[in-house]
Amino acid sequence: MFTDRLTNVQTAVQAALDAHVAQYPAGQLRDAMHYALQGGKRLRAFLVLEGAAIFDIPTEKAMPAACAVEALHAYSLVHDDMPCMDNDDLRRGMPTVHVQWDEATAALAGDALQTMAFELLTSPALGTAETRIRLVADLAQASGAEGMVYGQALDIAAETAPTPLTIEQIIELQEGKTGALIGFAAKAGAVLAEKDPAPFAAYAKALGLAFQIADDILDIEGNEDLTGKRLHKDAEAGKATFVSLLGLAGAKTRATELCDLAIAALAPYAQGADSLRDLARFTIARKH
Amino acid sequence: MFTDRLTNVQTAVQAALDAHVAQYPAGQLRDAMHYALQGGKRLRAFLVLEGAAIFDIPTEKAMPAACAVEALHAYSLVHDDMPCMDNDDLRRGMPTVHVQWDEATAALAGDALQTMAFELLTSPALGTAETRIRLVADLAQASGAEGMVYGQALDIAAETAPTPLTIEQIIELQEGKTGALIGFAAKAGAVLAEKDPAPFAAYAKALGLAFQIADDILDIEGNEDLTGKRLHKDAEAGKATFVSLLGLAGAKTRATELCDLAIAALAPYAQGADSLRDLARFTIARKH
Repeated sequence: MFTDRLTNVQTAVQAALDAHVAQYPAGQLRDAMHYALQGGKRLRAFLVLEGAAIFDIPTEKAMPAACAVEALHAYSLVHDDMPCMDNDDLRRGMPTVHVQWDEATAALAGDALQTMAFELLTSPALGTAETRIRLVADLAQASGAEGMVYGQALDIAAETAPTPLTIEQIIELQEGKTGALIGFAAKAGAVLAEKDPAPFAAYAKALGLAFQIADDILDIEGNEDLTGKRLHKDAEAGKATFVSLLGLAGAKTRATELCDLAIAALAPYAQGADSLRDLARFTIARKH
Repeated sequence: MFTDRLTNVQTAVQAALDAHVAQYPAGQLRDAMHYALQGGKRLRAFLVLEGAAIFDIPTEKAMPAACAVEALHAYSLVHDDMPCMDNDDLRRGMPTVHVQWDEATAALAGDALQTMAFELLTSPALGTAETRIRLVADLAQASGAEGMVYGQALDIAAETAPTPLTIEQIIELQEGKTGALIGFAAKAGAVLAEKDPAPFAAYAKALGLAFQIADDILDIEGNEDLTGKRLHKDAEAGKATFVSLLGLAGAKTRATELCDLAIAALAPYAQGADSLRDLARFTIARKH
């Protein structure tokens, strides 16, 4: 069942991340990295591991890539929560890193978590050097100045823009900010198997947008106890979101259409991809 | 002549970095990355390219690794200059990134420069996938939670420590903060040539310490117009430095001894390593 599989992934990924961090020299930096890696839905790790399972690649072989994408995601959250960025004090139900320690520790822990992500992709468990360098290149493209960080920069710029963003601009922003890393995660299994990642790219493109629309809906309808983060921030800041542009009902319809699109992209993989189909349904139905 | 070679490296590395950054989507993020990559002595790039030249590896083949180490170094400076870290307003004679733009832009530009460093190491020009993944692993180890960022965290912690650091603690701090990346750069040529990097590791260990001692001396005796950064900060902050612990004369003697040690480590490479020997002499004689 999907939720059991997700729980299993969460447990296994947490153990692997904790074990990796434990190798670093003890101190506040390591403590903050460990702290920033606790909890989370692990949807990106789930994408990596279930995508790999479609090609019969065992969990232990794909695990360093699953951990890499979670470390990369964690770094982005730590920096994004800092006062100079989104200034959030709550994340995954806990004080954010700069609240728990200080801003310097948050800056450094985020920096070192990004490094850790690339370090994990050098793990021999992932396969040949060709496969690993391909993953490094893919992660860099997904997360840097043409991927996630580009989307974050557009998001920051939007806060001071004279007019709210259009739907096309929001889609470009989100394809960078959240879509690119989801795309990396969804394709990683096929890359590990040396198969064509194109169907997974199409799946991820629809899934990523559906995920963001669901996030915008949760920001309106959600419960802070369940989401573990501050809500209603976008509306208070007067930011354009999928909900402000499409309306609540329109946003829900769009999310459902994108979920169907994501599922359709997996047609080549029959039952092997059922958990990725379940993930698409979960993404738009989740309460956190 | 050494200064001609260094000038040639500076020109070639700047052109390669600018060309790489120009590939990213236009906007403030790219502008800030480009800005942060201007100037600098390029000693780390020089180490890569001259190390490669010892093994007859041409500049164009080693260039992506030289650019990677400079991008990594630039990211560390952008983040280190931020108000939550060292709070510097001047770097390489120009306003720092958060002064020129804002803190969010500095955080994101630094993040994307780190990503760019790893991206550059995936360049096919560098050789086989085995060689490139080795460089990725080496850079991650040198720059993350057991390398540069670890040293930066020790440095931040020292600011609020109840007692000044001992010489052993300062050496540990500097071996992380500046030594590890210098070590990566010095070894990269041998890695590219698939030769033993051990002599270069020994050279870099002495060079990195000599470099830091020279920096501490410059912080006392230097000229802000020549160094392009604020000086006298360590003494004002009451931080222990090699000068405060060894005295000015003692620090100069130690730097000279380390320069000799660095040169001795290059004994296996005869005249081919002369520019690295010159670099060691330059490191302790420089005025900037």
